[in-house]
Amino acid sequence: MNVEFVNPFLSSLVNVLGTMANTKIVPGQPRLKKDEVARGDVSGLIGMVGNETKGSFSITFEESLALEIMFRMLGEKPSKINEEVTDMVGEITNMVTGGAKRILGEKGYEFSMATPVVVSGKEHTITHKCDGPKILMPFTSDFGKVHIEVSFDNMGG
Amino acid sequence: MNVEFVNPFLSSLVNVLGTMANTKIVPGQPRLKKDEVARGDVSGLIGMVGNETKGSFSITFEESLALEIMFRMLGEKPSKINEEVTDMVGEITNMVTGGAKRILGEKGYEFSMATPVVVSGKEHTITHKCDGPKILMPFTSDFGKVHIEVSFDNMGG
Repeated sequence: MNVEFVNPFLSSLVNVLGTMANTKIVPGQPRLKKDEVARGDVSGLIGMVGNETKGSFSITFEESLALEIMFRMLGEKPSKINEEVTDMVGEITNMVTGGAKRILGEKGYEFSMATPVVVSGKEHTITHKCDGPKILMPFTSDFGKVHIEVSFDNMGG
Repeated sequence: MNVEFVNPFLSSLVNVLGTMANTKIVPGQPRLKKDEVARGDVSGLIGMVGNETKGSFSITFEESLALEIMFRMLGEKPSKINEEVTDMVGEITNMVTGGAKRILGEKGYEFSMATPVVVSGKEHTITHKCDGPKILMPFTSDFGKVHIEVSFDNMGG
C-alpha cells in the first residue's frame, strides 16, 4: 500500500469536517504504525472488501473535539459522549470512507463498504489486524486531536 | 434479520473456544440490542459485505476471560492485554466469522469478510450503526463474560 491509497482518506476527512462542521484540522505526518499506539475516546470503524483486496478504516477522536464537532453540526453540545455523538461519528465514518471510495474508484480501485461500528471508551486503542502495512495519520485542531488509520491487504503491493 | 443468521455465529464461537482453547462458555438469551450497552475490555470487530447485504460482527471479552483463553491457547498468561492478546482476539474474530460464513453459505447467504480490527480499553462499548436490527448474545464462563453482536442490513427482512 502506498500513499496513493491513503491520501483519498486524508482529503475526504478534511473535506467532511470542513464542510459539515466548519472545523479546520491540520494534518501531521502520515506514518507506518508499528509499535506506536494512538489513543482516543470515540472511534468509528468500517470494513472494506474489494475483488482483490480487503481492509479496514478507523477514525479516532478525542472527546473534546467530538463534542465540538457535534455542536457545530447539530447545535447541541452534550457534556459527554452519548448516542447522538456515536451516531454522528458513524455518519462521519461513512462519509469519509464514501469520499475515499469515490476517489479510489476513479483510479480503478473498487471496493465495497461494510456498515460502520462505533467504539466509545476513555483512551481506548485500535489495532488493525491485516497483513498489509497500517498507516496512521494524525491531525490537530483547536479543540483536540483526531487520527485515522487505514490498512489494506495486497493493495498496490 | 432472524435467528437463522445469528445461530451460526453463536455455534461458531462455542466451537472455536471449545476446540482451540478448551474453554466452555454458556450462551444466555439472544436479544435485540436497543438501549442496552454491553461493556468489555478487548473486542474484535469485522465488516461483512455481500451482494445484497452488508453488516458487522463484534466479539467483546472481559479481560479475565481473554487472558485465560490466551493461557489455554498459547501457554502464557500476560498480566494485562498486550499485542499477543489483541492478535489472538483478531484471530478468534476471523475464525468465528469464517465459521459462520461457511454455515450461512450452505444456506445460500454469501458474504465476504473484511479484515478484523481489535479495540482495547477498559469497559469500552460498541455500537453497530446499521439500519437492520442489532442482536446481542451474552455468554458466561468460569473466567468471565463474553458477548457477540451481529448486525446486517436487509438480510432476511
